[in-house]
Amino acid sequence: MNDRIGRLRDVTINLAHGGGGRAMRDLIEDVFVIAFDNPALASLEDQAVFPLADLARLGDRLAFTTDSYVVDPLFFPGGDIGTLAVSGTVNDLAMSGAKPLFLSCGMVIEEGLAVDVLRRVAASMQRVAIEAGVSIVTGDTKVVERGCADKLFINTAGIGVVPPGVNISARRAQAGDVVIVNGFLGDHGAAILVARQQLALQADIASDCAPLGSLVDAMLGACKDIHCMRDATRGGVATVLNEFAVSSGVAIRIQENALPIREEVKGACEILGLDPLYLANEGKLVALVPPYAAQRVLAAMHAHPAGTRAAIIGEVVAEPTGIVVLHTVFGGQRIVDMLTGEQLPRIC
Amino acid sequence: MNDRIGRLRDVTINLAHGGGGRAMRDLIEDVFVIAFDNPALASLEDQAVFPLADLARLGDRLAFTTDSYVVDPLFFPGGDIGTLAVSGTVNDLAMSGAKPLFLSCGMVIEEGLAVDVLRRVAASMQRVAIEAGVSIVTGDTKVVERGCADKLFINTAGIGVVPPGVNISARRAQAGDVVIVNGFLGDHGAAILVARQQLALQADIASDCAPLGSLVDAMLGACKDIHCMRDATRGGVATVLNEFAVSSGVAIRIQENALPIREEVKGACEILGLDPLYLANEGKLVALVPPYAAQRVLAAMHAHPAGTRAAIIGEVVAEPTGIVVLHTVFGGQRIVDMLTGEQLPRIC
Repeated sequence: MNDRIGRLRDVTINLAHGGGGRAMRDLIEDVFVIAFDNPALASLEDQAVFPLADLARLGDRLAFTTDSYVVDPLFFPGGDIGTLAVSGTVNDLAMSGAKPLFLSCGMVIEEGLAVDVLRRVAASMQRVAIEAGVSIVTGDTKVVERGCADKLFINTAGIGVVPPGVNISARRAQAGDVVIVNGFLGDHGAAILVARQQLALQADIASDCAPLGSLVDAMLGACKDIHCMRDATRGGVATVLNEFAVSSGVAIRIQENALPIREEVKGACEILGLDPLYLANEGKLVALVPPYAAQRVLAAMHAHPAGTRAAIIGEVVAEPTGIVVLHTVFGGQRIVDMLTGEQLPRIC
Repeated sequence: MNDRIGRLRDVTINLAHGGGGRAMRDLIEDVFVIAFDNPALASLEDQAVFPLADLARLGDRLAFTTDSYVVDPLFFPGGDIGTLAVSGTVNDLAMSGAKPLFLSCGMVIEEGLAVDVLRRVAASMQRVAIEAGVSIVTGDTKVVERGCADKLFINTAGIGVVPPGVNISARRAQAGDVVIVNGFLGDHGAAILVARQQLALQADIASDCAPLGSLVDAMLGACKDIHCMRDATRGGVATVLNEFAVSSGVAIRIQENALPIREEVKGACEILGLDPLYLANEGKLVALVPPYAAQRVLAAMHAHPAGTRAAIIGEVVAEPTGIVVLHTVFGGQRIVDMLTGEQLPRIC
């Protein structure tokens, strides 16, 4: 069907591009098939099909996840909705220890969006997909009338394979486990605030949006028995730690002076009365590892580009169950609760 | 975490329900986890994990697909956005011959939506999931500000396993193949028109929205070598036939007097100047089967509740390649092109 490539003449999206007919086919072939460049998608079947034997060579369990992305604005320092849509879903797979393999891509487009915006977003998605070693193999395009969506929403679902012996779960935290993060916290949330001009700051804060599959691979190389791991997106590190504490029935103590936070992000938080522990990240994970392996895992992270600023920020203790406690720089303690209410809408 | 169930007190959705914190967790536990009732989802991990060996017992290839659903209105005769979101993705899997197994569910909700609407939609999804033998195992919830989406959009992605020896593809049509549909055409499109009151018709037309996995199973039992199969959603039967003709480099002839179309749907199409061949279906498939197996497949369909009105509507011929021709009841012929433009926005 290569004779059809290049047929798309429209510069903005109209309802026909979601109608199931020729205009939609031209859009899909001319924007998405070209950008995502792989045989499964190019065949234009309604589903991608892969030999199970190829998956079984990589591990013994399938991981499956999904996220929708509604970030506002679509483009921000350090990324865009496309880099987010690939990184976020890749990371949800990687947090189970899975090797991420295949993504789906469902686009909901507002009538009137510039086709060039879609091309830029698709190019971003493919760039991150290549970096993460995944292919975008199946997709869907819907168009809604002007005013019925805000420019562009993307859903990606992802499939990966978990290697034998890896068993990461929010329920596996144990007293003694060491809490590690892979670098500066809150960059994504702060970057979106600046991009929305809700913050009159000249600070050069960029989103940390990045796929973490190869970092996790390096961590598992140092210790297969990572107990808990989750990326600290909406709700931030505070929410992830609370999820671990509640799911495992343990307490988690973190040290304020150990938290890696950029001065610019601290400054932005002080101005706005925000707590960086609740700010969203898009390239940061929280891992709970057994104490004997902590230094090994940390060293492996430091040797990886996505973990150069990795740090131990706390430890798991037996009690009080379900509680996260912050030891402040002033020697005090305060409970770090789950996020209540909405800190920042449409952060991802 | 059962002590948390029932915590959701809100009657309408607000931005906090998409914030990643406590309100979101309460919504997910109280609406989705209860409705979709399965251990993978209830564990509230960010990904569902399954043994590959269990999948390998069902077949040798994995099928993966996605669709977003933006139908307007959310509820219509014969279904709602929830029945659609499960049936549509199950059907995309089934059309490859795959046994559908697992679905993801990504919700984009407009601030202000009634929680009861979500409960009804989730209940519909689960009802169809049970009927189709699939589990909704992973999900995501985003909330956007009032006016930034239209009530509710749902994305589902699906995973299934293709049994050995089944090889269905839009590229496999051959001269001599028989074209079969499983029943009345255009019901979904007509039902949406009536529901939108674009049609002042008292007619009792309901959407045909239904999962087709077990029908396909019965068809494959009659003939493993089905060449092409696709559900005739957006763009209708006309578009699917064109896709087969173009992808396989063949021509397809269909007989107008063989098309199963309800009198009410014919009437609606005449009033509105629509062609039922382009109307969307949500429980109808088009299959191309080798001639030796056509009667066997048809008999298997007639014996299945979703195929009682199955009919042979045409045949594949060698030329002119890429063309679909309708033989009219008056003895004439006309070319049935792909859908051009948008017949009916937000039909699914």
